[in-house]
Amino acid sequence: MNDELLQKLIQAGNSKIVMIIMDGLGGLAREVGGKTELESAHRPNLNKLAQDSALGLTIPIEPGVTTGSGPGHLAFFGYDPLEYEIGRGALEALGVDFDLHPDDIAARGNFCTIGTGGNLIDRRAGRLPNEESIGLIEQLRTIKVDGVEFFIEPIKEHRFAYVIRGLNLGAALEDSDPLINGAAPLAVQGRDDRSNLTAEKINLFIMQAKEKLSKRSSANMILLRGFAKLPTLPSYRQRFKLKAAAIAINGMYKGVSRLLGMDILEVPGQLLADQFEVLEKNWENYDFFYLHFKRSDTCGENGDFEGKVAAIEEMDSFIPRLMALNPDVVIVGGDHSTPAILKSHSWHPVPLLLYSERVRSDNIKEFGERACSQGSLGLLKATEVMPLALANAGRLAKYGA
Amino acid sequence: MNDELLQKLIQAGNSKIVMIIMDGLGGLAREVGGKTELESAHRPNLNKLAQDSALGLTIPIEPGVTTGSGPGHLAFFGYDPLEYEIGRGALEALGVDFDLHPDDIAARGNFCTIGTGGNLIDRRAGRLPNEESIGLIEQLRTIKVDGVEFFIEPIKEHRFAYVIRGLNLGAALEDSDPLINGAAPLAVQGRDDRSNLTAEKINLFIMQAKEKLSKRSSANMILLRGFAKLPTLPSYRQRFKLKAAAIAINGMYKGVSRLLGMDILEVPGQLLADQFEVLEKNWENYDFFYLHFKRSDTCGENGDFEGKVAAIEEMDSFIPRLMALNPDVVIVGGDHSTPAILKSHSWHPVPLLLYSERVRSDNIKEFGERACSQGSLGLLKATEVMPLALANAGRLAKYGA
Repeated sequence: MNDELLQKLIQAGNSKIVMIIMDGLGGLAREVGGKTELESAHRPNLNKLAQDSALGLTIPIEPGVTTGSGPGHLAFFGYDPLEYEIGRGALEALGVDFDLHPDDIAARGNFCTIGTGGNLIDRRAGRLPNEESIGLIEQLRTIKVDGVEFFIEPIKEHRFAYVIRGLNLGAALEDSDPLINGAAPLAVQGRDDRSNLTAEKINLFIMQAKEKLSKRSSANMILLRGFAKLPTLPSYRQRFKLKAAAIAINGMYKGVSRLLGMDILEVPGQLLADQFEVLEKNWENYDFFYLHFKRSDTCGENGDFEGKVAAIEEMDSFIPRLMALNPDVVIVGGDHSTPAILKSHSWHPVPLLLYSERVRSDNIKEFGERACSQGSLGLLKATEVMPLALANAGRLAKYGA
Repeated sequence: MNDELLQKLIQAGNSKIVMIIMDGLGGLAREVGGKTELESAHRPNLNKLAQDSALGLTIPIEPGVTTGSGPGHLAFFGYDPLEYEIGRGALEALGVDFDLHPDDIAARGNFCTIGTGGNLIDRRAGRLPNEESIGLIEQLRTIKVDGVEFFIEPIKEHRFAYVIRGLNLGAALEDSDPLINGAAPLAVQGRDDRSNLTAEKINLFIMQAKEKLSKRSSANMILLRGFAKLPTLPSYRQRFKLKAAAIAINGMYKGVSRLLGMDILEVPGQLLADQFEVLEKNWENYDFFYLHFKRSDTCGENGDFEGKVAAIEEMDSFIPRLMALNPDVVIVGGDHSTPAILKSHSWHPVPLLLYSERVRSDNIKEFGERACSQGSLGLLKATEVMPLALANAGRLAKYGA
């Protein structure tokens, strides 16, 4: 729904919406005609809820497009990720689960190799092994510059996420990476006064890094590019008139939620039970809850079919606790598919269940990929989930007379 | 379909299309797992027709959006209501079933309270009761101004629809409502010469209204805002090369049809039988017929589940008379859902049946919400119905070679 229409129709209320995102929920069968991870799971509670719900399959971005968790979440939250783009540096930091704050500046970093004259010999330092890279990152982490903090997180091989945190930083920064071998790494330059001061701090960091790595013949320098803050997005309160809370354990999901102005509720543990306890304790304080469940994706990425089945079964066991709270609207879905047999995210549409007392239930007695493909919500864009949830929550006024 | 493509493909013909709009057709079951109004109805003829048809569910505007009948009809007629917006005043008049003519100027009116100094004390006159408002409207109806006619129709509480009809009126008019208490009501001003002359007539009306209400301590003045004519839309003849007729009883539906250049056929009675008689008598004169059935919506709005079932059953009984005419294409659908249990319009997709000899029939033996969700037309936008009907009527040429 475009913003203009949404702002015309949105109205406050006191109904409560719960959105459960099972990361990487969608899957594939191990053999033709077989069952997916979700279909294989013993899931009596999800199946019972499905019977009273409308079902469908969400397309995260567009047909055929495999999405990362950042854009996948944005879409499911009701923000077109092609419109609200998260800068590369920020995305990289969120992508390794770094809990990026609104004023942090993030960049894509990598180790490179320079010759004795200081010019680049290999921009990727021979794609050095992860173990070696992690050791070098430990050295970078010891670097101190007055007035700012740095965070460096390994990504893969020569790549790392680089974050600078401090007061009054500017993100209008040019890359240090000249993008070709043979040239020398550049000093970072700012495009405005605040960014110039920030560039000075970063250049002090780079000089210390160069010194620390100077005894090495390869991976003896770093390059930084794609400096970005998190974008400013209309908050859930502005856009949907919802007081929203996120119940997530991993940093990236907290980061995306914070981006939308959700309160990040502290979870005192790593278990789904801890998350549901937080949900129950805060039930009176919010009218929208996002609860993120990571394990379905992790198992999918690891190619662990049975583990993903077990993760889904664990979530299933918590559905009665959720329904005991008597929510007005419940959404159960995923930000993308992560079929265990692919060991990666995929483009396949994701099962969706929308429950409310006002929903036109499909009378389908199962929550699974094939069952959802028979549902009345059909194949829908992930960005359409929130408007449907808001309608069911009685929070969208009539258009026209 | 965008206009450019449509104009490239559209071709004349002598096939006949009948579009039956059952207002508020879509419904909800009274209990989870139960049947909707349509599914509960004894509807042998619609079910028989469904078997030879393609089925689907229409989304009137967008997922989650509840529409009024005006935009809902525009969409079903093939015009994107977000593109062809009907001004607030005109919409208000159509919304209370006023048969607005193309040159009429309509505004949103309301009673307000002014103090002895003439400044507004309460822009809404304490939301006076409907009965009291109707009495005051009777007084306004006695006001005469040379060269123009006025129509005032009650809406609710302090609100009324205000229409001025005459020759050469201009609608570029500023509101008389200053929008804040403490200020005085404004004289209406025009933004061009014709509108200036129109403003004079309206200001004469307002002065007389003030005088008539002057003995009252509250609701002693009126405010007018949102002056608008009906928008100019491409007619059915221009856009679809169809000679179209509307067979409707209520004013609003005549108004929207007239907007599209349909001939409004006079119905000599209030019964569906009267409407079908008009259809039969005019069968040779048109190639597109729109037949509007209001009772399904009225019963839905009143929360009368059984009444809505009976209304659908009544329509069902006329299907054989329709098919005896041997139409080339038949559309049976609705402008929006009006579930009796909600007593209001809703966002739920609306059952759609598309019959023609060229349709790929679904072999589904039932016309109902769940049956249509299994249909081959899937979930489609209401604006896509007319292109499908035109294709089935042999009126769309091939695109490209």
